[in-house]
Amino acid sequence: MPKIYFDHISSNPLLPEVREAMLPYLCGEFGNPSSLHDWGQAARDAVEAARAQVAALVGAEPDEIVFTSNGTEANNLAIKGLALAYGEKGRHILVSSVEHVSVLNAVSSLERFGFKLDLVPVDKNGRVDPADVLSRLRPDTVLVSIMTANNEVGTIEPVSEIAHLVHERGVLFHTDAVCAAGNIPLNVQNLGADALSLAGNQFYAPAGAAALWLKRGVKIIALLDGGFQENKKRAGTENIPAIVGIGKAAESALKDMERRAEQLEPLRDRLLSELPKRIPYVYTTGDLSRRLPGHASFYLEFVEGEAMLLWLNSMGIAAGTVSSCTSKALKASHVLLAMGLTHSQAQGSLTFSLGIRNTYSDIDYLLATLPGIVDNLREMSPLYDRFMKGVA
Amino acid sequence: MPKIYFDHISSNPLLPEVREAMLPYLCGEFGNPSSLHDWGQAARDAVEAARAQVAALVGAEPDEIVFTSNGTEANNLAIKGLALAYGEKGRHILVSSVEHVSVLNAVSSLERFGFKLDLVPVDKNGRVDPADVLSRLRPDTVLVSIMTANNEVGTIEPVSEIAHLVHERGVLFHTDAVCAAGNIPLNVQNLGADALSLAGNQFYAPAGAAALWLKRGVKIIALLDGGFQENKKRAGTENIPAIVGIGKAAESALKDMERRAEQLEPLRDRLLSELPKRIPYVYTTGDLSRRLPGHASFYLEFVEGEAMLLWLNSMGIAAGTVSSCTSKALKASHVLLAMGLTHSQAQGSLTFSLGIRNTYSDIDYLLATLPGIVDNLREMSPLYDRFMKGVA
Repeated sequence: MPKIYFDHISSNPLLPEVREAMLPYLCGEFGNPSSLHDWGQAARDAVEAARAQVAALVGAEPDEIVFTSNGTEANNLAIKGLALAYGEKGRHILVSSVEHVSVLNAVSSLERFGFKLDLVPVDKNGRVDPADVLSRLRPDTVLVSIMTANNEVGTIEPVSEIAHLVHERGVLFHTDAVCAAGNIPLNVQNLGADALSLAGNQFYAPAGAAALWLKRGVKIIALLDGGFQENKKRAGTENIPAIVGIGKAAESALKDMERRAEQLEPLRDRLLSELPKRIPYVYTTGDLSRRLPGHASFYLEFVEGEAMLLWLNSMGIAAGTVSSCTSKALKASHVLLAMGLTHSQAQGSLTFSLGIRNTYSDIDYLLATLPGIVDNLREMSPLYDRFMKGVA
Repeated sequence: MPKIYFDHISSNPLLPEVREAMLPYLCGEFGNPSSLHDWGQAARDAVEAARAQVAALVGAEPDEIVFTSNGTEANNLAIKGLALAYGEKGRHILVSSVEHVSVLNAVSSLERFGFKLDLVPVDKNGRVDPADVLSRLRPDTVLVSIMTANNEVGTIEPVSEIAHLVHERGVLFHTDAVCAAGNIPLNVQNLGADALSLAGNQFYAPAGAAALWLKRGVKIIALLDGGFQENKKRAGTENIPAIVGIGKAAESALKDMERRAEQLEPLRDRLLSELPKRIPYVYTTGDLSRRLPGHASFYLEFVEGEAMLLWLNSMGIAAGTVSSCTSKALKASHVLLAMGLTHSQAQGSLTFSLGIRNTYSDIDYLLATLPGIVDNLREMSPLYDRFMKGVA
């Protein structure tokens, strides 16, 4: 049985060059960057080299990059840190209804300090209409956060357009680019944003390093207080191997982004077009044209996403349903509900996120395997039984 | 020239078995623990195994361990999370004047939410008197935090005694055990505390994993909101290699703690007794009997600690002055000032934190090297010149 990984939105295998770059920092190079000796200097040099590599990936200056431990921390730092730093302006925060839970729950947590969360709707493809953001801006709006691309349905949002509109009205703009950075071209010079979150485990670095890009001059209140690390924006001893890893992975992503997309898009498009043909009552989710290169997502009627995952797993295939961060909730995806799907449709969510090791034969194996799995599961579904009898 | 590392309080080399345990998670095992497939299950199993290993190190239950990215995050989570969760009781927080900056600055950051920081003094050896804690407790005291051992002077505090006294009065107690855990025996069953911070880079694991022990039933407000990781106490994708590393290192520390102490204490004691004999105007800092096994610290009159660090570094020796987290501040140590040293004395702080790779010949090299360095530096010091002329 093959072992095929189609869940790159949850985590990525490391690139060989990323692993090679990290290994010295698990051996002789174990210094603390804050230490005033050669061991410390080597660690300092490594962090600063990685900072420049990550900055280059998004067209930023190195001193605008704040390393964090993961994308969730970058989003929490952005949302809480900006809201608290600029809270005197107002306490209204606007985010899309399809944001990752690390954005939604970070804003909710601010309600105990008097902040108010407001949601911008999306269309049936998960796209935010910039006019809907504009119409919800209030004099006391302190922050707008709209994701660059959605992790569950792959839709790329019009963030640059939104950022400029929001900025013209003097409101701060953050974008969660965790599943976009490293996979599609991003340049903060023309994005019009104040802050952008990215994470290494979305472009073949390990999960222990991520970053917040914070525009020079924008204030922020740190989440982690203590020493002088990260220019006092994020205290705590740095995770050098992971930081070196995200740096190297950023360098590779910048160099190979176009080639990777050219490899992934035909695989993705084959899945997007073939699955609905081969299995009845299967529909794609998300925007088909403005979409992450390796992202294919669907909903299937009369079958539960999690049951499909387990069957697929038993056939050697790793896939996803909702965001892995909320998979334990066993709830219908808030993203699909916001796009207008019913609870029952949203329960049939299935996501394949492809990576650079995936091949056409992986796709063929999936296309050959999934129809039988779905048939089996539907045969056990009383809903499907009633539906078919009604049809017949 | 030898290369001798005496700065283990800043960071540790990895144990070979720790590195070996981590390597699979940089290769084939790259799953996200939240994913519902074999790759996710392998990661989940790895995290839970490490959780049990870390719990065993401090006599805790696995479900009481919350993994964080470093000791600073564990301290911030404890201080902010407990204060906010129990803030209705009162807003007075009591910590010792020799706490790590991640505790001091975390409390200070809460002042914007109406909390008040109060400092407990220490004696000339850096010890907290439990009576001084008791006399400062107020009806509105919500949290007391006293470190288990001090990173700059090695003094072990009477935390269990303090914890029980504080607990009897119905006040929450946290201890920053970052430089104690893994190096001296700790058991939360008889400690009397509610929360305890520890960090892997203090016992030969990498810097990317640390933990907060949180007593079962004690509420906490998360710093990082988002998914369901760490039982909703710390959202965000887990750093599996580092977590596996801290688990393995905890297992080794528990097994080898006594043997390591037996190895380190004679080396430490040789430094503590010999340096003041061989160099005039050198004094030990901290408590000589209740002290971390590998920790030797001093202050030298008429010479700056940082100048000594740079000279020692040029001779192949890594040492420390103040906490590495504040080394960039170039300020006199708040710990030494709290112990009654003058600013000028505190500027002469020098710390050697030994590790299990250090040998007697390392100590001999240091003892042979340091007197000449100090002589050279003092010859350049106008203060020393005036002092010697006054003496003569």
